[in-house]
Amino acid sequence: MEPSEPGQSMGHEAIGVVEDVGGEVRTVKSGDVVVMPFAFSDGTCAFCHEGLHTACVHVGFFGSNGFNGAQADALRVPFADGTLFALPVGEDHALMPSLLTLSDVMGTGHHAAVVANVGPGKSVAVVGDGAVGLCGVIAAKRLGAEQIIIMGRHEDRIALAREFGATDVVSERGEEAVERVRELTGGFGAHSVLECVGHGASMQTAIGIARPGGAVGRVGVPQEETMPASQPAFYGNINIGGGPAPVRAYIEELLPDILEGAIEPGRVLDRTVGLDGVPDGYRAMADRESIKVMVRP
Amino acid sequence: MEPSEPGQSMGHEAIGVVEDVGGEVRTVKSGDVVVMPFAFSDGTCAFCHEGLHTACVHVGFFGSNGFNGAQADALRVPFADGTLFALPVGEDHALMPSLLTLSDVMGTGHHAAVVANVGPGKSVAVVGDGAVGLCGVIAAKRLGAEQIIIMGRHEDRIALAREFGATDVVSERGEEAVERVRELTGGFGAHSVLECVGHGASMQTAIGIARPGGAVGRVGVPQEETMPASQPAFYGNINIGGGPAPVRAYIEELLPDILEGAIEPGRVLDRTVGLDGVPDGYRAMADRESIKVMVRP
Repeated sequence: MEPSEPGQSMGHEAIGVVEDVGGEVRTVKSGDVVVMPFAFSDGTCAFCHEGLHTACVHVGFFGSNGFNGAQADALRVPFADGTLFALPVGEDHALMPSLLTLSDVMGTGHHAAVVANVGPGKSVAVVGDGAVGLCGVIAAKRLGAEQIIIMGRHEDRIALAREFGATDVVSERGEEAVERVRELTGGFGAHSVLECVGHGASMQTAIGIARPGGAVGRVGVPQEETMPASQPAFYGNINIGGGPAPVRAYIEELLPDILEGAIEPGRVLDRTVGLDGVPDGYRAMADRESIKVMVRP
Repeated sequence: MEPSEPGQSMGHEAIGVVEDVGGEVRTVKSGDVVVMPFAFSDGTCAFCHEGLHTACVHVGFFGSNGFNGAQADALRVPFADGTLFALPVGEDHALMPSLLTLSDVMGTGHHAAVVANVGPGKSVAVVGDGAVGLCGVIAAKRLGAEQIIIMGRHEDRIALAREFGATDVVSERGEEAVERVRELTGGFGAHSVLECVGHGASMQTAIGIARPGGAVGRVGVPQEETMPASQPAFYGNINIGGGPAPVRAYIEELLPDILEGAIEPGRVLDRTVGLDGVPDGYRAMADRESIKVMVRP
């Protein structure tokens, strides 16, 4: 990240307890336990009504472009009614880690799966074994995929992916990975590919492993300005979609499965630190000691 | 095109009368008037069953890669049962030009519209005023679009686009075109964009004029290896799909509208030549004297 101004907090995914609300706030009240999606949205514009809250005409992203984030003791949330989702649980609920993933990674993995047209009987390949990729496995399983191929090479993450429903593992990269996925999918590639990395190489792999007529749902923030346009993307009639996930729109659908224990995305949060431990938490993720670190201020 | 071997014919879209059939042909018979889609397909593989005949495991494209084309007195059509569509008309039918467009341009414009999710109430922008773009206008109108913006600068084509249902014309290019389409669509861009050119600049324009959450259906053969990946494609959650149109799959749907006169795609064929006139036909298209030339061998 670029250095920020002193006093500006980072951190874009959070659950918190509402301390106080502004005079125009109608639906959220003091004491509510709320999920804070990584983007704020007014909840009233055309895009919010269409379920694309990340294109809200008032959208902003917590912890960037001058907006404060949630790695802090307190945070003012703009457009509270449109942004926050009040949970039917107390702040010490045992499922808090899984509920926290509704603020980003679970909703983002779900978005990739939705955009990639995952459905019953489909073959799905997930590019990336980070927290989002692992939630993508959960989402694919939840949406009825028959075959779920996780592409990654970290043993602990692969093990968790298998518990989440992955049926196959591909640890190769580049052309070898493409060949391997083709072998696993009857020679043609996967119906649905979830791109959860954002690098140029991973995007190329994602397109390369998609079946003709298939779809790539990309949620990894693109690190390059361009992506492949011609063979096989065009000649295979491969659909490429995705972007910042409208996680606010997905909470209602995903919440019951979390509360019933049908899905456990909170398992990607395998370490907890306090605010003082944030730098070491990032180090642990960078060193692949931890999949994702939860901060308890 | 690359120079071809002597005796190898070009021409990928045709209607013809069946002279004779091979011993394994079951559904097509001598004397049938048939549409020949630009790609041949076996009609039996998984992709043909899914309606993506251009990804058939036996696919080939007439007039390229060593396969003969239809600018000839006669042509052998591989996989006749899977490829050809027998028409319920005689060979001197008045609607022959419109029926001929089922072999490519009408089906291709329709494919762009389908991939771009055109539907009732939608705003549609068509990039390119060639035969495919004009058929894209017909397809958008037919699928219920409320607003259809044709982007082009040739008066005769624009006039035809208006007759086909275009509601607005944008003759600007590049950033000015993007601004103009935004103005025409309430500031946000078009729900559906039909990319019917294939140049890098037209693809960039197509993505630039798509509404967040919208879709680009591209059928112009890409002239560049890459396309924009980041802003606004990713941040706008814009879907990019399309490729060689499975026109074989669309004939059944489009044919009744042609026979009833509800659509008149044959109007893009504004000149007729014999086999000897083919070179001058290409010249006329290159000089923009003709939208598309029909050949009567």
